Amino acid sequence: MALILLTNDDGIFAPGINAIREELERIGGHEVWAVAPDRERSASGHAITMYRPLFPIKVAIAGAQSPCYSVTGTPADSAKLAIEALLPRRPDLVISGINRGANLGTDIFYSGTCAAALEGPILGIPAIASSLDSWESRDYSLAARFTAELAFKVLAEGLPAGTLLNVNIPARPADQVAGVRITRMGERLYKDQWDKRTDPRGRTYYWLAGELMEMDNGPDTDVVAVAHGYISVTPVQLDLTRYDQMQRLAGWDLQP
Amino acid sequence: MALILLTNDDGIFAPGINAIREELERIGGHEVWAVAPDRERSASGHAITMYRPLFPIKVAIAGAQSPCYSVTGTPADSAKLAIEALLPRRPDLVISGINRGANLGTDIFYSGTCAAALEGPILGIPAIASSLDSWESRDYSLAARFTAELAFKVLAEGLPAGTLLNVNIPARPADQVAGVRITRMGERLYKDQWDKRTDPRGRTYYWLAGELMEMDNGPDTDVVAVAHGYISVTPVQLDLTRYDQMQRLAGWDLQP
Repeated sequence: MALILLTNDDGIFAPGINAIREELERIGGHEVWAVAPDRERSASGHAITMYRPLFPIKVAIAGAQSPCYSVTGTPADSAKLAIEALLPRRPDLVISGINRGANLGTDIFYSGTCAAALEGPILGIPAIASSLDSWESRDYSLAARFTAELAFKVLAEGLPAGTLLNVNIPARPADQVAGVRITRMGERLYKDQWDKRTDPRGRTYYWLAGELMEMDNGPDTDVVAVAHGYISVTPVQLDLTRYDQMQRLAGWDLQP
Repeated sequence: MALILLTNDDGIFAPGINAIREELERIGGHEVWAVAPDRERSASGHAITMYRPLFPIKVAIAGAQSPCYSVTGTPADSAKLAIEALLPRRPDLVISGINRGANLGTDIFYSGTCAAALEGPILGIPAIASSLDSWESRDYSLAARFTAELAFKVLAEGLPAGTLLNVNIPARPADQVAGVRITRMGERLYKDQWDKRTDPRGRTYYWLAGELMEMDNGPDTDVVAVAHGYISVTPVQLDLTRYDQMQRLAGWDLQP
């Protein structure tokens, strides 16, 4: 019986993580533990907590068949602590999500969802990051069904070391979804990012704001796939080396 | 005249950022602004601050020829705010560091130094992340000299879009450095990561601890290069797509 770790960056009580837990437990045949932050931790990137301790608290989630924990830390903290200290054994798969809001293109660098999932491959375990492309929708049914299908596929077929799948699901009924695309990571940039204000004491401060810029992303990117109503699945790697530049840099003849 | 942005995750008053600023200003011919967190922010990953505003404060640094700012946020916040709101124009190069302590292998996912540098390529600007392999040494002279040399090379030769150079410098005198190696990203794992304790009220908590595991990293990795006394330069890419898995996943025939 496979052991699956669920985690996220929206917190242990968020609807997305409970939708995928319920779907996996409905299908059955696997043990599903949920360990996630005690509150929303979006945009926390891959931050980990080094200078204060973490408290895992067992929480009661209606209907859950295995333990669920909240952790007083970041998404990456939660996944790392779960894998290395809380679970009864090494999990066979890490699923992070289902996130409220997409994690597409270069935005995945900021994503707590993807950071938590990455703890899987960092520790040698395959992983899926799953996100619903909506901040409003409470309907995680298609996303849960698809993520569960993909999870069983990953458990059966495996992923190469150092790999996770980043999944984004459009927020529409299943019969209006265009299909599934295997995609590459696109680019996402924002315009008018900073809202400049003055506080009551005359000091300048800035709010991060901004709107998505229109980008010339190719049809094979995650960004365009989801915009066109497809479920996007991007294989993401841990190895960030840009191999095609190694020989060029060697030619720079750098000296200590 | 090129404009260089310096940033880091050790804070605006850390010795490393001031060593590279002094070296660049000593050589001259470039404008060097420093914008960095107001305090140490190690292991902050790529976290960005969305739910409170950021205050940039102009700080006095002895000898600095251009403005220096502290920011009440993360390393990625500091770099992003500097590039998009504080600098007089778009910088030609971002340098993050010189960090106190190495940023090698998979640890770069947790690194505030690398996250701040990555804001460069995310916004289309070449970048260098530079780290000294020591928590104790206060001698940043070799690291500053090498990082400046590399900076001028990058300004002259350019880097392809979406690329940064991750540099790690051994903490030894220049004449004891073995040379410079262009490397790939190695693996770093820790053992006995979690120190489990009980608080005065009987609750279990965990401290992140642990020691580096012996890993079988190849001689072409950053980890091994620095261990053997070489300066390591790793070209790092923004595109995380694992292209070699795209066809295989297409064969899984996933359905919405």
